[in-house]
Amino acid sequence: MTTRLQGEARAEALAKIDGWIEVEGRDAIAKTFKFKDFNAAFGWMTRVAMVAEVADHHPEWFNVYNRVEVTLSTHDAGGLTEKDIALASRMDRFADEMAP
Amino acid sequence: MTTRLQGEARAEALAKIDGWIEVEGRDAIAKTFKFKDFNAAFGWMTRVAMVAEVADHHPEWFNVYNRVEVTLSTHDAGGLTEKDIALASRMDRFADEMAP
Repeated sequence: MTTRLQGEARAEALAKIDGWIEVEGRDAIAKTFKFKDFNAAFGWMTRVAMVAEVADHHPEWFNVYNRVEVTLSTHDAGGLTEKDIALASRMDRFADEMAP
Repeated sequence: MTTRLQGEARAEALAKIDGWIEVEGRDAIAKTFKFKDFNAAFGWMTRVAMVAEVADHHPEWFNVYNRVEVTLSTHDAGGLTEKDIALASRMDRFADEMAP
């Protein structure tokens, strides 16, 4: 099982991703992504969905029109793990590629 | 502009859709859909996304794994309209088609 990120390993992992905040009262990270419109937002979600499915590690996400609010945590580890960092990183990269 | 559903027209419209609840403190309807797994949930979302885009009327939705929590309201009308009923109806139909 993937173990929760703590101490220095956690700080190093968080330094690798950009704009994610630590969720209060829960061992999770969150970020809000904004796109040009719904087409772009859902296109991005679709790319993310595929890599999430391959990794068998899925986000919690809320979408309305061009906005997607994402929370990442590893349920069976009870907190933040490398799986979340990896998914966050892919999300950032896909969003960068779709930047206007 | 589509007008808000009120009175008898509203009651008749709500009678056409199944399992949707009226949101407290807001003129909107909500329903939670459950699927076999993430693949099924996101597949359903993708079908819905296409018809939402064609209608230029988009849902507010939260997904985690096999669950999708949907809220529908027509922002520029300030409440529930026929557009929401139409989208709710398509969501129900697509979910029925994907029933295990």
